[in-house]
Amino acid sequence: MAKITQLIIGDEILSGKIQDLNLRFMAKYLLDKGHELVYSQIIHDNEEQIKYSIKEALQHSDLVVLTGGLGPTKDDKTKMVLKSFLDVDLVECDKAKVQVEQAYRHIGKTWTPETNDYHLVPKGVEPLENPKGLAPGLMAKYEDSYIFCAPGVPNEFQEMFRSVILPKINIQYGEHDIKTELFNIRTVGVPEEVIFGELCPTLWDDLEKFGKLSSLPQVMGVDLTLTLEKDDKLEEKKKSIRELISKSQIARNVWQYGNLDLKEYVVELANKKNITYAFAESCTGGLSASKVTDISGSSKTFLGSVVSYSNDVKEKILGVKKETMMKHGAVSAQTAFEMAEGTRKVTGADIAISFTGIAGPGGGSEEKPVGTVAIGWSTAKETRSKVYNFKGDRLKLKERFAQKGLFRLLKILNRM
Amino acid sequence: MAKITQLIIGDEILSGKIQDLNLRFMAKYLLDKGHELVYSQIIHDNEEQIKYSIKEALQHSDLVVLTGGLGPTKDDKTKMVLKSFLDVDLVECDKAKVQVEQAYRHIGKTWTPETNDYHLVPKGVEPLENPKGLAPGLMAKYEDSYIFCAPGVPNEFQEMFRSVILPKINIQYGEHDIKTELFNIRTVGVPEEVIFGELCPTLWDDLEKFGKLSSLPQVMGVDLTLTLEKDDKLEEKKKSIRELISKSQIARNVWQYGNLDLKEYVVELANKKNITYAFAESCTGGLSASKVTDISGSSKTFLGSVVSYSNDVKEKILGVKKETMMKHGAVSAQTAFEMAEGTRKVTGADIAISFTGIAGPGGGSEEKPVGTVAIGWSTAKETRSKVYNFKGDRLKLKERFAQKGLFRLLKILNRM
Repeated sequence: MAKITQLIIGDEILSGKIQDLNLRFMAKYLLDKGHELVYSQIIHDNEEQIKYSIKEALQHSDLVVLTGGLGPTKDDKTKMVLKSFLDVDLVECDKAKVQVEQAYRHIGKTWTPETNDYHLVPKGVEPLENPKGLAPGLMAKYEDSYIFCAPGVPNEFQEMFRSVILPKINIQYGEHDIKTELFNIRTVGVPEEVIFGELCPTLWDDLEKFGKLSSLPQVMGVDLTLTLEKDDKLEEKKKSIRELISKSQIARNVWQYGNLDLKEYVVELANKKNITYAFAESCTGGLSASKVTDISGSSKTFLGSVVSYSNDVKEKILGVKKETMMKHGAVSAQTAFEMAEGTRKVTGADIAISFTGIAGPGGGSEEKPVGTVAIGWSTAKETRSKVYNFKGDRLKLKERFAQKGLFRLLKILNRM
Repeated sequence: MAKITQLIIGDEILSGKIQDLNLRFMAKYLLDKGHELVYSQIIHDNEEQIKYSIKEALQHSDLVVLTGGLGPTKDDKTKMVLKSFLDVDLVECDKAKVQVEQAYRHIGKTWTPETNDYHLVPKGVEPLENPKGLAPGLMAKYEDSYIFCAPGVPNEFQEMFRSVILPKINIQYGEHDIKTELFNIRTVGVPEEVIFGELCPTLWDDLEKFGKLSSLPQVMGVDLTLTLEKDDKLEEKKKSIRELISKSQIARNVWQYGNLDLKEYVVELANKKNITYAFAESCTGGLSASKVTDISGSSKTFLGSVVSYSNDVKEKILGVKKETMMKHGAVSAQTAFEMAEGTRKVTGADIAISFTGIAGPGGGSEEKPVGTVAIGWSTAKETRSKVYNFKGDRLKLKERFAQKGLFRLLKILNRM
């Protein structure tokens, strides 16, 4: 198993222009194979800084993976920095030539040495195949360590890391199957301070008897994660933990023992019970539907959503009465009620959930401020609706509204 | 102006469990005020590593901002690490007490010294208000440098950084308005290598005459970004750049001069021209609608979307003929055609765009593999549809399908 450091080269990340996506990808793969990611560092496209950071990284790890700066343009400096770091010449490399010719053929183009200098590598450095791009990666031995260079574009980096770099690391340093399992207790509706301070002052110590505990506040609620040894008693331990929680003061705040997202959990439960559902979305604008359709297999029970942004659509497709919207407003328990009922009728779903609210920044009033949402739900047995208030900017509010509706759907699915 | 280093403390980030969101947030704010983010480093919740990294960071910057590990649970070690780093005692702090009492009152609870130790801080350290949470931040002077500690939960960190930490940095180190402007040339459909290698070999040098150029491949296409001096000739320079591009071989691949996302650009253009639009989404599952409704003001011209995941919904709401789907399949140019036409009729929109495809991983065939999508468009003048093929996993395909449809919408909006 290797100790690994990641260096992410990118002015665009340090200026906030783009979000790094390669750390999380690499971290997951390393963990699965028992390697340790010592740290990850995002640095500027600056020769001196890159060289200093490689040196520093190699003092704390067996190898370093650099991402970024391998393309064809003049701001792609990684290859020249590596040449300077190793203090060698740039030389023609037959293996690189073959890789590049093949990559260009793959996109229907012909590569020649005049096209670019992708066939030149620092002397002694091995070129690495780039299955999703054109510029080869690089692998250099330096004293007892290795330096890998890969492109920064996420889909190129990720495929090269998965299929080219990781197998080399596994061969060189060994791999092992992880002997622990993460067991998640997912809660909603209470802050960390209230869980451990007020409701369950002994919970931390009680849970740590089973394994290392960590607590992570997420948008939706707090995740308590236990690292459990994969031994004979694993299932027994899980059962004891569930019993412990079910007798505690946070029992009613726990919505799942497991690693699924809310959307995955909803899709799985609806499919298992074979219950169909549909949405009517105003303020969430299709986000709730997009969430469940992120999950493969959702088409088994998810019928669809009517994103009724205009009142006309609410009326024509969902059959919401004009008078209801006139009298109570488009954002009201009454409109949500009719949206849910109309959606169930028009789609034939077993459950319909409706969302109508104000995501802002405009459109709020004293009576109905930004963050107000009416959520309706309709089944063959009953139709109901309720008004809630949340805080946040437009995107956070869309997220919270959608979550609230999915939690409502979960509640109904659990009862059916 | 300050040189700043960010240390992100989080085992959950280095294990790939969660995605860091604080680097990008902080980077944007620093850039706006002329500060330099020297690097950002993600490290483990380990006392020795944290102390080493603080020392290292302060050698390269004026101050360090630590995020994470400030909560109430036993795995929140930052305060104790700071105490050990500064080699001082933990003492009661009246200012912290007042902040914590107020924060608890805000969530309807009462704090007392028995609740937790939020009122204790390392001697000489200033507690910082946490407007969105309960645990105070910390600010320590160390030799000529400053150490700021903030929570890692994104909404808490971001508000504390914006409203508490950044103003202190600005006062201490000065701020200045940026004298440069980023000018984006956004392209679609050609890789970097083809732009600079084949189509426009002199473009890099030609553009660098105006300012520093960088090239960034994104999912959708390549962004060429010029850093332009904000002087008298700014508008003249922009005009010359546009002329240069319009005469080049990539003219038809440029879809925007500016910093807007595709969704922002579409919403802005539709609103400016006052043209209404609506979607019918099968494979994109509401993603296209969710994208445009992320933009405030979209309700002016966006009427809605029918997420017709089931064929029944396609038939009942959109009026797609059963025979069409039976004969050509739900994923076909013919079905997309009828979906677009039906959507325009039922919503009354000026433009309707439809999406029906296979996002996978299941559902593909030899004739229609995963990644196949039929996109339809309908206006008062014409209705048409076309089949495309993309590669990627489910989420990437949803993204590419939605982008393709939004580009189609953009094309139609530009012509109208």
